[in-house]
Amino acid sequence: MLLLSSYPRINTCNVKNITRKKFKKVVVLLSGGLDSSCLAYLTSKGCYHNKNKVFALTFDYGQRHKKELKGAIKIAKKIKAKEHKIVKIDLTLWGGSALTDRKIPVPQNRRLTASSIPVTYVPARNTIFLSFALSYAEAIGASEIYIGVNSVDYSGYIDCRKTFIDKFQKLANLATITGVYGDKIKIKTPLINLSKKEIVKLGLKLGVDFSLTWSCYKGEKLACGVCDSCRLRLRGFKEAGIEDPLPYR
Amino acid sequence: MLLLSSYPRINTCNVKNITRKKFKKVVVLLSGGLDSSCLAYLTSKGCYHNKNKVFALTFDYGQRHKKELKGAIKIAKKIKAKEHKIVKIDLTLWGGSALTDRKIPVPQNRRLTASSIPVTYVPARNTIFLSFALSYAEAIGASEIYIGVNSVDYSGYIDCRKTFIDKFQKLANLATITGVYGDKIKIKTPLINLSKKEIVKLGLKLGVDFSLTWSCYKGEKLACGVCDSCRLRLRGFKEAGIEDPLPYR
Repeated sequence: MLLLSSYPRINTCNVKNITRKKFKKVVVLLSGGLDSSCLAYLTSKGCYHNKNKVFALTFDYGQRHKKELKGAIKIAKKIKAKEHKIVKIDLTLWGGSALTDRKIPVPQNRRLTASSIPVTYVPARNTIFLSFALSYAEAIGASEIYIGVNSVDYSGYIDCRKTFIDKFQKLANLATITGVYGDKIKIKTPLINLSKKEIVKLGLKLGVDFSLTWSCYKGEKLACGVCDSCRLRLRGFKEAGIEDPLPYR
Repeated sequence: MLLLSSYPRINTCNVKNITRKKFKKVVVLLSGGLDSSCLAYLTSKGCYHNKNKVFALTFDYGQRHKKELKGAIKIAKKIKAKEHKIVKIDLTLWGGSALTDRKIPVPQNRRLTASSIPVTYVPARNTIFLSFALSYAEAIGASEIYIGVNSVDYSGYIDCRKTFIDKFQKLANLATITGVYGDKIKIKTPLINLSKKEIVKLGLKLGVDFSLTWSCYKGEKLACGVCDSCRLRLRGFKEAGIEDPLPYR
């Protein structure tokens, strides 16, 4: 059983606090990608010693790579999520991203720098996702929301950064009855300071079935290997010295 | 033509700034209720001298009073909104409110105090609505988002208060590319300090067709007259000395 203390950079997880209560309800944002799948495993076991009741939340938002939803469904079953809600929202209504507007091509072999934000950025996506998670958490009485944002090996999306999460936490504390009058719902980001290599290694220790996860933005039969998401994933596996079981073109 | 300066309590609207640019794009959250309908008229004319291009945004969220959507569609046409998006989201997936869970009855003749939050509160609803508005605004290049929250004659919903809006503004500034690198998208709440009586009077001056608006939470053929929303509306009309054209039971 993995203890998070063996991962010194995962410092947002306080094992003592987490294991104090039995069967805490937690909402986990699960896209079906590599990061959120590792996160889902992490919340359901590992440091938490099966003490969490995981309520998984996935969005069918009109993404080009809708294929990731299949992965999310399988991962939610694997981790024995207490509940798995798939929320249908249509962000193609206004597009503004290569992921929600088919007329904008997905960049290939782009230079990966955190300072340039690619056209795959979806306007306010994480704000929307966290808002739903907050609503869900408050309705079911969950005490924590887990989101697999990462600001080391990532595409430079601004809504993956700690400053954004901190601001959302402050908003959440004022936006809900729970926040104002009860125990605040905490936003947890245990992967935020991990590199992709470290996430792959973490997934391996947790027993994540990587073949169920999907990262490629194109969402075709085979992963393209050249979009930002594929490249970050491939680099992570390579650096971790593990073979990615997904089929690539 | 109404000038907002004649409404001293509407102090969030700076006419000078607003009229500086021609055809500014603004997103207006429009439920089809009394407040948001007055807001929609206000943003499309009045102090803005028809300089705004209004992009109306309405949510079909599984609300008991889905009937309000018809009003929203008519109001959007009346104000000649440049675009009107109706976003379908299903908040009945987890309910937690008398408006999204048919098993919870709508309270009748409840004592109206801001300190007690009724079961018609929908978990994180305004956070969700503003998140979508932020996404929409960023995608179309709008510079302002208008929301008809009101914290004088209201049901005590915590996500209608200025502190909540201020926190959302801070989040928005960090959650979007526009917020971080461009002109920040501003959240505007011109009705926040108005009483219901003042909103009715404002609507009258703006020429709002009140018969198109819908407030009753029950959403039946006739307004019930006893839910919080009906009672606040009726009291507003009464205090303004105007007859509410809606049919009541």
